[in-house]
Amino acid sequence: MALVLYERLCAEDRRPSPFCWRARLALAHKGLTPEVRGLKFTEGDKVAFSGQTKVPVLVDGDAVVADSWAIACHLEDSYPDAPSLFGGPGGRALSRFVNHWVDHGLQKALSPIVAPYLLAVVQPDDRAYYRQTREAKFGLTMEQLAVRRPALLEALSPVLEPLRQRLSETPFLCGERPAYADYLAFGEFQMMRSACDVDVLGPEDVELRTWRTLMLDLFDGLARSVPAFETAA
Amino acid sequence: MALVLYERLCAEDRRPSPFCWRARLALAHKGLTPEVRGLKFTEGDKVAFSGQTKVPVLVDGDAVVADSWAIACHLEDSYPDAPSLFGGPGGRALSRFVNHWVDHGLQKALSPIVAPYLLAVVQPDDRAYYRQTREAKFGLTMEQLAVRRPALLEALSPVLEPLRQRLSETPFLCGERPAYADYLAFGEFQMMRSACDVDVLGPEDVELRTWRTLMLDLFDGLARSVPAFETAA
Repeated sequence: MALVLYERLCAEDRRPSPFCWRARLALAHKGLTPEVRGLKFTEGDKVAFSGQTKVPVLVDGDAVVADSWAIACHLEDSYPDAPSLFGGPGGRALSRFVNHWVDHGLQKALSPIVAPYLLAVVQPDDRAYYRQTREAKFGLTMEQLAVRRPALLEALSPVLEPLRQRLSETPFLCGERPAYADYLAFGEFQMMRSACDVDVLGPEDVELRTWRTLMLDLFDGLARSVPAFETAA
Repeated sequence: MALVLYERLCAEDRRPSPFCWRARLALAHKGLTPEVRGLKFTEGDKVAFSGQTKVPVLVDGDAVVADSWAIACHLEDSYPDAPSLFGGPGGRALSRFVNHWVDHGLQKALSPIVAPYLLAVVQPDDRAYYRQTREAKFGLTMEQLAVRRPALLEALSPVLEPLRQRLSETPFLCGERPAYADYLAFGEFQMMRSACDVDVLGPEDVELRTWRTLMLDLFDGLARSVPAFETAA
């Protein structure tokens, strides 16, 4: 069966999209290796066959699945004999809660920090689009965001506390082994690593650093296989 | 088998402890009805047999279990034939993450709002203890916290966003039926309702309001069975 994943492609082969990393790692968790096709921000028409223009989009034989959560559910339901992404119905329901916490908590805190760096990393002909949409979203220019970085980093620290607490108990959010909620959270750190040399973790974040390293090591170093700023590795 | 739950007791039979509501609702979820014994803040010695002085403490036959999470795990493991609190191993792992998010996100945002009201609700001879410990924790006097309430309410709204998003999809955090993660989050709203007439939800929070009502209705209205400020019901 043909398995194709469309994901965001930036300059120098960088792959910072956290949503696409969710899909990449979920596929690897299921033991699946897709053909990966990178798209610029301005190439959304290339996935218009999915009924929308965003990535990730997974083509799995006859199935076309857009949206990272829908992809995770598709993989869990279509490959039930491979390791579970959710660990049962309770895990699926609460993975969705973690999904929302990542989107509206963790990513909300990280995205204004990383945005000025991403502007430098997106493809040259994506820059105008990226600047315009993100400045509208934040209500601040890229330059204003850059100036605010120290305050944004300070505001991030308390947001990380549920992760810190959980990782002080078990190696992964999902327990002794990683699963989808780990990929949800890790996608954000992979975004940072792909786009900039800012390490958002302090030296005191021992457990979070260890977890991040374990996540980078998964699946023969899949998340290490793309260009990155090593300072944050 | 004797089943006794020690929980926090405030003036006028109020029961605002969110930790104790986690235990109360987890017991009801398992179809268990404990004898409930209320303790003042200054009566911690009455549960010293548990090796510490905080509530909730559950005595289940020969087992003595302190801490709300340990109580949930004890109930899940000891009563496997009753409805599951977690919905499988993935649900247990991520319920623990939700536990940390509630403690360090939701409760962190709510507790400075409710503290001045709780001061008025704790037993008269608990007041000095309560004021001293909470003012030290927040680094602000009760009067300073009360003055800051509008700003604290404004800061709460984005914290609620993962709940809003999740409850726009299914009636409960855990899906079609409530489970332990719902009790974790609801305990905070029950604390508010038991202690004050401030409704922290805005009129736009339709799904959260509906969920809160459903939670109050559970188990023959268990959470309605204690004194409360009805404004927030």
